[in-house]
Amino acid sequence: MQADSLWTVSEDQFEPKRQNHAETVFTTGNGYLSTRGAMEEGYPGERRTTFISGVFDDIPISLTELANAPDWLELHLLLSGEVFRLDQGEILGFQRVLDLRTGLLRRSVRWRSPMGRTTRLEFERFSSLADPHLNILRVRVTPEDYAGTLEVHAGLNGDVDNEGFKHWEWLGQAAHNGSLWLHTRTRKTHIELGQAARLTLSGPAPIQGDGWDVHNHPTLVRRTALQPGQTAYVEKVVAVYTSRDVPQPLNAARAGLDPAVLPSPAWDHLWEPHAKAWEKEWAACDVTIEGDDEAQIAVRFSLYQLLIAAPRRDERVSIGAKTLSGYGYRGHAFWDTEIFMLPFFTYTRPEIARNLLSYRYHNLDGARKKARNNGFKGAQFPWESASTGEEVTPTWVPYFADPTKMVRIWTGDIEIHISAMICFALCQYWTATGDDEFMLQRGAEVFFEVARFWASRAEWNKSAERYEFRDVIGPDENHDHVDNNAFTNAFARWTLRTARRLLDWVEQRDPALAADYRARLQLDEAELTLWQKVAEKIYFAYDPSTGLVEQFEGYFQRRDIDLAAMEPRTESVQGLLGIEGANLVQVIKQPDVLMLAYLLPELFDERSLHANYDYYTARTDHTYGSSLGPSIQAIMACRLGRQEDAYEHFIRAARADLRDVRGNAGDGIHGASAGGVWQAVVFGFGGLRVNEKGWTVQPHLPAHWKRLTYRFKFRGQEQVIDLPGKGPFSSEEA
Amino acid sequence: MQADSLWTVSEDQFEPKRQNHAETVFTTGNGYLSTRGAMEEGYPGERRTTFISGVFDDIPISLTELANAPDWLELHLLLSGEVFRLDQGEILGFQRVLDLRTGLLRRSVRWRSPMGRTTRLEFERFSSLADPHLNILRVRVTPEDYAGTLEVHAGLNGDVDNEGFKHWEWLGQAAHNGSLWLHTRTRKTHIELGQAARLTLSGPAPIQGDGWDVHNHPTLVRRTALQPGQTAYVEKVVAVYTSRDVPQPLNAARAGLDPAVLPSPAWDHLWEPHAKAWEKEWAACDVTIEGDDEAQIAVRFSLYQLLIAAPRRDERVSIGAKTLSGYGYRGHAFWDTEIFMLPFFTYTRPEIARNLLSYRYHNLDGARKKARNNGFKGAQFPWESASTGEEVTPTWVPYFADPTKMVRIWTGDIEIHISAMICFALCQYWTATGDDEFMLQRGAEVFFEVARFWASRAEWNKSAERYEFRDVIGPDENHDHVDNNAFTNAFARWTLRTARRLLDWVEQRDPALAADYRARLQLDEAELTLWQKVAEKIYFAYDPSTGLVEQFEGYFQRRDIDLAAMEPRTESVQGLLGIEGANLVQVIKQPDVLMLAYLLPELFDERSLHANYDYYTARTDHTYGSSLGPSIQAIMACRLGRQEDAYEHFIRAARADLRDVRGNAGDGIHGASAGGVWQAVVFGFGGLRVNEKGWTVQPHLPAHWKRLTYRFKFRGQEQVIDLPGKGPFSSEEA
Repeated sequence: MQADSLWTVSEDQFEPKRQNHAETVFTTGNGYLSTRGAMEEGYPGERRTTFISGVFDDIPISLTELANAPDWLELHLLLSGEVFRLDQGEILGFQRVLDLRTGLLRRSVRWRSPMGRTTRLEFERFSSLADPHLNILRVRVTPEDYAGTLEVHAGLNGDVDNEGFKHWEWLGQAAHNGSLWLHTRTRKTHIELGQAARLTLSGPAPIQGDGWDVHNHPTLVRRTALQPGQTAYVEKVVAVYTSRDVPQPLNAARAGLDPAVLPSPAWDHLWEPHAKAWEKEWAACDVTIEGDDEAQIAVRFSLYQLLIAAPRRDERVSIGAKTLSGYGYRGHAFWDTEIFMLPFFTYTRPEIARNLLSYRYHNLDGARKKARNNGFKGAQFPWESASTGEEVTPTWVPYFADPTKMVRIWTGDIEIHISAMICFALCQYWTATGDDEFMLQRGAEVFFEVARFWASRAEWNKSAERYEFRDVIGPDENHDHVDNNAFTNAFARWTLRTARRLLDWVEQRDPALAADYRARLQLDEAELTLWQKVAEKIYFAYDPSTGLVEQFEGYFQRRDIDLAAMEPRTESVQGLLGIEGANLVQVIKQPDVLMLAYLLPELFDERSLHANYDYYTARTDHTYGSSLGPSIQAIMACRLGRQEDAYEHFIRAARADLRDVRGNAGDGIHGASAGGVWQAVVFGFGGLRVNEKGWTVQPHLPAHWKRLTYRFKFRGQEQVIDLPGKGPFSSEEA
Repeated sequence: MQADSLWTVSEDQFEPKRQNHAETVFTTGNGYLSTRGAMEEGYPGERRTTFISGVFDDIPISLTELANAPDWLELHLLLSGEVFRLDQGEILGFQRVLDLRTGLLRRSVRWRSPMGRTTRLEFERFSSLADPHLNILRVRVTPEDYAGTLEVHAGLNGDVDNEGFKHWEWLGQAAHNGSLWLHTRTRKTHIELGQAARLTLSGPAPIQGDGWDVHNHPTLVRRTALQPGQTAYVEKVVAVYTSRDVPQPLNAARAGLDPAVLPSPAWDHLWEPHAKAWEKEWAACDVTIEGDDEAQIAVRFSLYQLLIAAPRRDERVSIGAKTLSGYGYRGHAFWDTEIFMLPFFTYTRPEIARNLLSYRYHNLDGARKKARNNGFKGAQFPWESASTGEEVTPTWVPYFADPTKMVRIWTGDIEIHISAMICFALCQYWTATGDDEFMLQRGAEVFFEVARFWASRAEWNKSAERYEFRDVIGPDENHDHVDNNAFTNAFARWTLRTARRLLDWVEQRDPALAADYRARLQLDEAELTLWQKVAEKIYFAYDPSTGLVEQFEGYFQRRDIDLAAMEPRTESVQGLLGIEGANLVQVIKQPDVLMLAYLLPELFDERSLHANYDYYTARTDHTYGSSLGPSIQAIMACRLGRQEDAYEHFIRAARADLRDVRGNAGDGIHGASAGGVWQAVVFGFGGLRVNEKGWTVQPHLPAHWKRLTYRFKFRGQEQVIDLPGKGPFSSEEA
C-alpha cells in the first residue's frame, strides 16, 4: 500500500443496500456540525442527516434528540434534461474516497444515462475546520459523447425529519438570483437556525439563472450548454449559524457569504485554512503503525471520527454515544464520553477535554435536580444526558417484537456509576494536564457534589455492618436490579476518598475558595465524617482464597452456561435468551470487573488479575455484547502478556464501524469503540501508564507490528513515543 | 334571521389564536377525504390537514394514525411582488362562510399590503360529493388602487406531517407547464397516493407560466398584470387517488384531469353535480326547527360534519371519534360510531350504515385474534379500531404533566362492552331497514362470535352462584378495574339471548347457512347451553326496594362528594382529583346506568327510571366529563318529562364544537356529540321510538320551539314527521 492509502477509506461500488452503513463511514464534519455521507442527489432509504452539536429538540419517548437540520447538501443535475440518478441508467465507473487527513469526501462517477449519454462527474465536499460555519461542495461535469445542456438545482431544504419526526418550523426564506437563505427554528426548544447558500456555475458557454421560491425549500437554478469534453464547474457554499452561537443567526449566515469576505468561487479560499487546521490536528494526535495496514487505517479512522465530533469552541455540549453521525441513542451522551472517548482528548487535545468536562460542570444543576427528585443529596448525573443535565433516558420503549407492548428501561433510574466516571475523568485530566485552575474552579465542585450523592445513596446493612449499594445496574447491563455491584461500590469508595483529599488540597491552595465550597455545598464535619465512614465500610466482594471479585452479590450463584455451545450466532446472548433469561445466567455483556481493574489497577494484585481475567473472559459475550468491551479486554490482555488475545479483541473494536461487525453501524459511529481503539493502541500495545508521579511505557506490540509511534501531552509537554525505536520510556527516567 | 343564514356557519375576524378551532369548524370534505379549514396561504401554528378515509400509517405509542396527506390546498399570491399574508399589512374586511347546504367554504378579504396596495380577494373551495376524487379551489383577485402584477404559486406539497410525524415517502413528481403531479406512499403501510393538479390563471392581460420542479414540492407558477378594478381568476383543481381505490393511483389522478373529461376552467363543470349530490343528501336527512335558530344551525352543522365523514363507497373504513377532522384519537374508531353516530345513518342513509357495519364484519379476524390472545373464544372487538380490527389503544402514554413518566391506559384491555355495542347497532339497523340478507350473511356471524366471547369471558362465582364480569371498565371511565358493571353485564346477557334467537331465525330462513355457521363457529349444543346458562345467571345489581341499579359492585360505597361545591370549574372532576382520586368518589364521567336505560328500556319500569335518573344525574360531571353524556341525558330527561333539563343538556351537546365548550375542538369534531344531537332531537324532543313492531312518536318539544320536522326511513319507506303539525304518529296506526 502507498502512504496515501493509509489515510483513506474508500468504496468502489454504489450499493444501495448498504448505503446507511456507508453514510456513517463517510460522515464529514468539524465538531460544530457533521453531515452523513448521503449523496447530493438523494436516494430512497437514505438517512440524509446534518446534526449541529447541541441542537436538541423534544420528541416523545426519548424526550429529546439532536434535530436533523434542514439539508444543505441538496444538488440535482439535469444532463440534457435527464435527471442524474445512479439508480437509473448505467454506472460505468464509481469511487468514493474519504481523505482522513483533510476530511475531504470525493466521489468520481462515469454514468451513462437511460438515453445513452455518457458523463463524467467529480463531486467533492468538506465542512471547514477553520471556519466551522462554512460548508462547501463542488462538482465538475464533463459530457463525454454528447453536446447538451446542464441544469443545476440547489436548494436549502426544510423538509427534513429524524426517522419520520419533524423538528423545524419555518420562519422565512428567499430564493432569487443573488441570494438563497432559509430561516427556521426547532419546534419546542426554539433554537433558531439561519442558513445561507450561494450557487456558482461556470463553463465555456453563457449561464442562465432562476430562483424558485418554494415554501420551506428555496432553490436556485443555473443552466448552461456544454460540448463533448468540455467541463462545467458547479459550486455550492453554505453558511450555517444558530441562536446558540449568535443572537441573529440568519444575519450571520448571510454575512458569511458576503463577496467581500468570501470570493466566488470559494473553494480555494476555504481549502487552504481548512487543510492547515487539519494538519495541526494530526500533528497533535497521529498514531502510526507499520506492518498492519488495516490497523493503521482503522486507528486513523477512529481518530478522524472523534475529531469531527469534538466541540472545539463550545463547553455546553458533549459527544453522544454515536458521535454526531447517526440517530442511535438520539445524540445523548453516556459514560462512553468520559471513559472511552475523553482519554484521547485529554492526552492529545486537552483544551477539547476541558470543554467536555465543563459540559458536566455546567449541567450540575440538572444533576442536583435528579438527586433531589430521587431523595438524595449532591449531584446524580443522568445516565443519558443532553442539554441540561437532566435525565433523558426513556422510561418505557415499545417492545421491538410487539409494538403494542412497552418495555421498562431501568438504566436512567439505577445505573448510577456514571457520576463517579465523571470524577474519574476529571482526575485523569488533572493528572495529565496539571490544570489546577480548572480543578479548583470547576472540577472540585463536581467532585464534592458527587461525593455527597454517594454518601446519601449508601445504605447501612446493620447485620453485616457494612454500607451497600442495592438495586443498581453495573456496566454489565445483562444483569439489572443487582445489589453491591463491585464496580459501582469500588468507585463510590474511590470518589469519597478522592473528594476528601481534594478538599484538603483546595484548603491549601485557596482557603477562601474552600470556605466557599464548604458553606455553599454544606460540607460540614458531619458530612465529611460520613464520607469517611461510608468509604471505610463499603462492601467489596473480594475473595482472598481465589483472588476473584464477585461482579455483584449472588453472581456466582447464577447459572454458568457454555457460551461456546451457542456458536455460531449472529446476535447477542441477551437477544437469544431474552432480557429475563439473560438475567438468570452468568453471561455478561461487558467485563465489569476487568473494567474496574483497568481503571483502578491498585485494587488488584497480579494473581487476582489473572484469576479475574480468566474467569470473566470466559463468560463475556465478546462478539455481540457491548461495543465497549473489546478495547478494554485488549488492554487487559496486553497487561497480562496475552498478546494474541489482545489483538483479537483489538481488531474486533477496530472493525466495529468499518466492517459493521454488529450490523448497526448505520445508526452512527460507535464512539466508545473509536476511543477504545486509541486506548488499546496507546495504553495496551503502546504500554503507556500515567499517574501523579509521571508516565511510563511498557510496550506489548503484536508480533507482526514492525513499528508503532504515538504522541501525547503530559503537563503541557508533547511526548512522541517511537516503538521499537528508542526513546524515553518513562518521564521519571528522562 | 333569513333562511340562508340557517344554513351557514361564519366568522368575520381573522383570529390566529383560535385558528385551530376554526379549522375544525370549517372542515370541508366528501367522506372520501376531508380538509381542515386552514387557509390557502398558510399561517404559523396552523394544523393544515387533509385526511383520506382509511389511509392509516404506523406511529409510535398510538400504533397507527390517519396520515395527513400531501397538501393539495397550497396557493401563494404575490401582489406586485408582495406576498399576500393576513398577518402582515392591514385587514380591511374579512369574512369566512361555510355553506352547510353545499359544503362550500368561502372567504372574502379586503387587504392593504405593507406597501399600501389594496386588493379584494374571494376564495372558494369544495371537495366534490359527486366525484370524491376531485377537489377544487378558486380565487378572484381585484387590485383596487394600483396597477401591478399578480403571481400565483400552486404546489403539491409532500412536506407535511402529523404534529411533527412524517408519514410519506416520495416516489415521483413533475412540474412543467401543463402538468403538476406528486406520487408518494405511506412509510410503513405502503399505501400509494397519486395527486395531480391543474392551475389556471385568466385575466385581461397575457399570462406567463413556469414550472418549479423542487423535490417533494412540485409547483406551478403563473404571472399576469392587472389594472385597478380588473379581476383575475385563479383556479386550482386537484385529483386524488390511493392504492386503496385503484391499482395505479397516479395514472388515475392524472387521467382525472384530462381536458377531454374536465374542461378548463372546471368550476362550473364540477359544481353542478356536486350541488345536486348535496341536495339529495339533505332531502334524506334534514331537520328543521322553528323558534330556535341556534339549535337549527347546530343540528345542521352536526349532520354536515357526519355527512362529510361518512364512507359512501367503502365498507372497510369506519368513522373515527373525531371524524376526519382532526388529530384527536388519531382517527381511531370507538363505540362512538355504533351507538352515537350510526343511528343517524341507519334511519336516514341506511346504505352508509351498512358500510359502517360491514367494516366490523370485515375486521372479524382481528377481533378473533384479540379474543384468542386474551384467552377467550369468539370475537372481542378492539376498544380503538383502525384498519384491521386489531386493538390499537395505546398501552402506555406519556403523562401530560411530566413526559418522563408514562401512564398505563387500560381501556384496550378491559373496556369490553364495545363488542355488544356492535351487536346492538346491527339489531338497530336490522329493525329499521328489514335488511334480512345483510343480517344473514354478515350480521349473524358477528353476533355469534361476540356471544361466544361473552360466554367465555364470564366467570362463575361459586359462593354467590352467579356469572360475573370482573375487572372491567364501563362507559363511565372515571372508575376502572371494577367488577360487575351493570351496563356491561346487562349487554352481555342481551347479546347471548339475542344471538340465540338470531340463530333460531337463521335456521328457519336458511338452514344450510345455519348449518355452516354451526360447523364453522363451533356452535354446538354445549356452547348454546352455556349461552343460556350464563345469560340466566348473570349478576345484575337491581335493588327492588329503591329501584336503583348499582353502576358496579361497590359503587354505592364510594365517597359521595358535593359536585356543586366544586363549581365554578374549568376542567373535569377527574382532572381536578387525579385518576386515582376520581376512582374513589362517586362522580361519574357519563351516566352508565341511564345509557343502559336508553338502549334497553325494557329493563326499567317508570319508578326505577325516575330513581336512577335522580340518583345518577346528581353525580355526573356534565360539563367537563364525557362529551358522550349530554345528548343521552337530554333524551332521558325528555322521556321523564323534564323538559328544561333536557334542553340544557341538549344545547350543551349542540355547542360542543361550535362554541368549543370543552376547549379541545381544535383536535377535531366530537363525532359522538354530533350524532347525539340528532338523537336528542329525533328520539328525545321528537319522541321517535322504534321496535320490531314499528315506530311511534311521542313528542316532547321544548317550550320555545314552534315547529320541528324530521325525516327517517323505516323498512325502505321515507317518513316525514312534522311537529306540532299533524302527521302519522305511529306506523301501527298508519
